Amino acid sequence: MLPKKHPRKKSLEIRHKLVKGLKEGLVTQAGLIAHGRGEAFDYLLGEMTKPDAKKAEEAAVALMLLAEKPVISVNGNAAALCAKDLVKLALLTDSSLEVNLFYRSKEREGKIAKELKKAGATRVYGAAGKPKRLQGISSARRMIDRPLWESDAVLVPLEDGDRTEALVAAGKKVIAIDLNPLSRTARKATITIVDNITRAIANMNLIAKKLSKLEKNRLKTIADSFNNKTNLKSAERLIRKGL
Amino acid sequence: MLPKKHPRKKSLEIRHKLVKGLKEGLVTQAGLIAHGRGEAFDYLLGEMTKPDAKKAEEAAVALMLLAEKPVISVNGNAAALCAKDLVKLALLTDSSLEVNLFYRSKEREGKIAKELKKAGATRVYGAAGKPKRLQGISSARRMIDRPLWESDAVLVPLEDGDRTEALVAAGKKVIAIDLNPLSRTARKATITIVDNITRAIANMNLIAKKLSKLEKNRLKTIADSFNNKTNLKSAERLIRKGL
Repeated sequence: MLPKKHPRKKSLEIRHKLVKGLKEGLVTQAGLIAHGRGEAFDYLLGEMTKPDAKKAEEAAVALMLLAEKPVISVNGNAAALCAKDLVKLALLTDSSLEVNLFYRSKEREGKIAKELKKAGATRVYGAAGKPKRLQGISSARRMIDRPLWESDAVLVPLEDGDRTEALVAAGKKVIAIDLNPLSRTARKATITIVDNITRAIANMNLIAKKLSKLEKNRLKTIADSFNNKTNLKSAERLIRKGL
Repeated sequence: MLPKKHPRKKSLEIRHKLVKGLKEGLVTQAGLIAHGRGEAFDYLLGEMTKPDAKKAEEAAVALMLLAEKPVISVNGNAAALCAKDLVKLALLTDSSLEVNLFYRSKEREGKIAKELKKAGATRVYGAAGKPKRLQGISSARRMIDRPLWESDAVLVPLEDGDRTEALVAAGKKVIAIDLNPLSRTARKATITIVDNITRAIANMNLIAKKLSKLEKNRLKTIADSFNNKTNLKSAERLIRKGL
């Protein structure tokens, strides 16, 4: 048990969720390392959602609401950290949920799908469905299910650079959540949210409730006025200053 | 299996070594997360050995060659990542090898010693030997074996601040490898190498081959002309400014 007033309580609780996820087979050990890297960047950001990130979250929600067939792609860390909020966001933005893993195993894929269903999802897609082959990517992640194949916008929290690049090359708008503004994922995505995934998805749910009342042209203005390059530069400056 | 051309192959291979180390009982879960934190700083450095780091590596090798009784202190992550290169450096600089762990267990200590022996070490010291008590430190790491007790210089890759401080207070010259130039370890050490441990130890082996041919007064000039404070400031500037 953590002391109630521990100054890093939230951060440690998140770690505990991942360690639990590891025990349950949702998360891999490499996923813990990836999380450690994120923690360091988050620390340098002051562990809070910066105005730039908020702007990216708004643009991302606008993009998802405008999309014909949006998809939310979930990996092990994402499921362990915020399955409920991801399912909620899928409902609010009418997105399909799919599981896609860098270290793929049918067993882990099944466990993550189960976790999402426990959190309220009615249907979860994945490479175990009717996979199609994404071009320009060599890992197991190239196999994707129909909804993602047909989608025009996809939210990929905690994605790797290869797949981000391949999805963009396939003509999709890609929204990434990545605390490292220098990563390939961050640079390749259409919209990059430099924020902790747990804060980002919770914020996006609040934003989605508001934006879903707006007309399409208003949403379009929000999405179009966002510049990913400028936004990333600004996040990088904040992190380097935060050292 | 990683795709051959994955652009982050090296970084991922390092991760895999740690995951293997965890399975084998050399590494702890906390060690995985600590490694992730290092990855973030390495990213900000552009994942390469900077000229300042090279200078620190040269000064460190000179110091080790000049020392009467140098010691290399090894923890779980160090053993999992570069046991062979550490043993090679011990041979080239005539250093004793010792195991010292933050999360200490006799079993893990034994496994790490075994890993070093598999990599060619003939003798490995550790707290399980004839421990003496280092002053000013409260964790299990205060127990140290004779060679370290008697040593005048010690290389502590991936060390914590407490022990670095205690070793310096005990009159030893301490060489640390730490990707965070602001850490207590970095600030307390005699020489801090701000570099990834795998690159640093490999570089130090190349440097040791060259420097071991030099006379003592030449080595002394190299070691004495190094200023840790200035060097750390420079590393910090690099990270803050970016590339």
